[in-house]
Amino acid sequence: MSPVFALAVDIGGTKLAAALVEPGGRIAHYDRMQTPVDLDAEGLWRSLEALLDKLLAEAGGGDLAGVGVGCGGPMRWPSAEVSPLNIPAWRDFPLRERLRARHPGLPVRVHNDAICMAVGEHWRGAGRGRDNVLGMVVSTGVGGGLILGGHLIDGASGNAGHIGHVVVDPEGPPCKCGGRGCLEAVARGPGLVAWAQEQGWRPDRAEVTGVELADDARRGHPVATAAMRRAGRALGVAIASATHLCDLEVVSVGGGLSQAGPLLFDPLEEAFRAHARMDFAREVRVVPAALGQTAGLIGAAALVFAADRYWSAD
Amino acid sequence: MSPVFALAVDIGGTKLAAALVEPGGRIAHYDRMQTPVDLDAEGLWRSLEALLDKLLAEAGGGDLAGVGVGCGGPMRWPSAEVSPLNIPAWRDFPLRERLRARHPGLPVRVHNDAICMAVGEHWRGAGRGRDNVLGMVVSTGVGGGLILGGHLIDGASGNAGHIGHVVVDPEGPPCKCGGRGCLEAVARGPGLVAWAQEQGWRPDRAEVTGVELADDARRGHPVATAAMRRAGRALGVAIASATHLCDLEVVSVGGGLSQAGPLLFDPLEEAFRAHARMDFAREVRVVPAALGQTAGLIGAAALVFAADRYWSAD
Repeated sequence: MSPVFALAVDIGGTKLAAALVEPGGRIAHYDRMQTPVDLDAEGLWRSLEALLDKLLAEAGGGDLAGVGVGCGGPMRWPSAEVSPLNIPAWRDFPLRERLRARHPGLPVRVHNDAICMAVGEHWRGAGRGRDNVLGMVVSTGVGGGLILGGHLIDGASGNAGHIGHVVVDPEGPPCKCGGRGCLEAVARGPGLVAWAQEQGWRPDRAEVTGVELADDARRGHPVATAAMRRAGRALGVAIASATHLCDLEVVSVGGGLSQAGPLLFDPLEEAFRAHARMDFAREVRVVPAALGQTAGLIGAAALVFAADRYWSAD
Repeated sequence: MSPVFALAVDIGGTKLAAALVEPGGRIAHYDRMQTPVDLDAEGLWRSLEALLDKLLAEAGGGDLAGVGVGCGGPMRWPSAEVSPLNIPAWRDFPLRERLRARHPGLPVRVHNDAICMAVGEHWRGAGRGRDNVLGMVVSTGVGGGLILGGHLIDGASGNAGHIGHVVVDPEGPPCKCGGRGCLEAVARGPGLVAWAQEQGWRPDRAEVTGVELADDARRGHPVATAAMRRAGRALGVAIASATHLCDLEVVSVGGGLSQAGPLLFDPLEEAFRAHARMDFAREVRVVPAALGQTAGLIGAAALVFAADRYWSAD
């Protein structure tokens, strides 16, 4: 019997990744490339097609059950005209329509990349077996996805899960969204890096991100440590709010910043426990994401293989 | 043909109310009594039974499709051993079991009173026809219920919708829950009254609540007006957080404090628009609840008549 795969795709500003994923969630074949930065919309599409052709050729056969895609937002959903913040070449690019034309007769499902990561963590990661889970990504931005009652919550426009814009301090720093004191404004990597540099952090590399800051925190740099504490506290407050509003069981936290480990999770837990005080919030666990870099691909595959739980649209 | 009703019950610290509600949501028969304060658990149960007997006798016939109840929390859900904060006589009182014994063969469904009000507003009130709605009650406490994807969200323990414990200021006033800076700590009627009295509000009545404060605000009292502004801003921040997290369409705000009208809703809207800045949040409307005092009864009836949307338990 010929194997059955989901073709899973993860489209971000740094890399394009694709995989053939088995119905159980195992990645059977994988390939990736840097996201081209100097191509126009059609050139970028042809690069993606070449990556998919190569992957399918390497796999040498097997039936496709469908195509699942996580893509940086924003997008019109579920039609998936995508305008990823970090991919300027695509503005209202008809990603779903193109993939449907390429794979006629197959279901093609596209969702926000952070939502796919949350779905992956729920399907096969830290949230497995629980019905009420928030999956978070703390990186250049802060995103997430919300599974309640065992089903992915889409909200009015496919944007549910945007915990990065939960307010943690109404008088806090301005946010790119135009608001003030959003979790993302405090805890996103570049925001933390800027804060740490203001406080006297002088990294010995030219280009720094939250990952280098987390590294320096692990090495004991006091300002880098303070930056992780600042992010951890903001995360703890936002997660407490989400827990009370949605009556969660598990919150998984992934993304580059989560590599700081206890330096992030200890202040997070402290602030979370200080604010999540309703009886029903006592059992909630906040844990590091389990799937790492492949969470988004596995979640994209779940849009195909577990559509009853993760895909509510047409 | 004999009419079909849901027996709807609303159990609060101030009053016990019951109604026979038609499948379309109209209240055909209604009765109420003050909640007895000097009875033990069984005495209170007998009072409730007497109220229900009287209502059913007045109605003089008709078939019951089921029993729906909104009751003050907390409770173990869905088994509904209830321990309403404002009804000390009932601690772990087996309300659902008693009602089942009284109405054998009928579905008996009990939920939190604020959730029933939100369900009522979604079924037949300000959220009607929308799939993503937060219904709020701002009164002695601040509660709510969450409808997403057209279905009531229960969360892990039936406690989803607790917007009163979304954090609006991590350094804010202590909350009864043990946390700090919860929406409820700032915006609950007694909290506002205390704040207004500290600021020099001297009401000419002995017993005052948020309703009197709202009245004085409407009459132009500057401290009472400032108190409404304080509550409105906190509400706006919390609603912005909920909107971003859940991708809502409509937020209905009811309860005694909402009687302050624009004095509450104007600063609410201002803070909400300042913080709800993601594109997808632009279309959200925050509106006064439409059903008034009967929202909870109508929502309790919806647990019977629209169980596919509002009742996920056994």
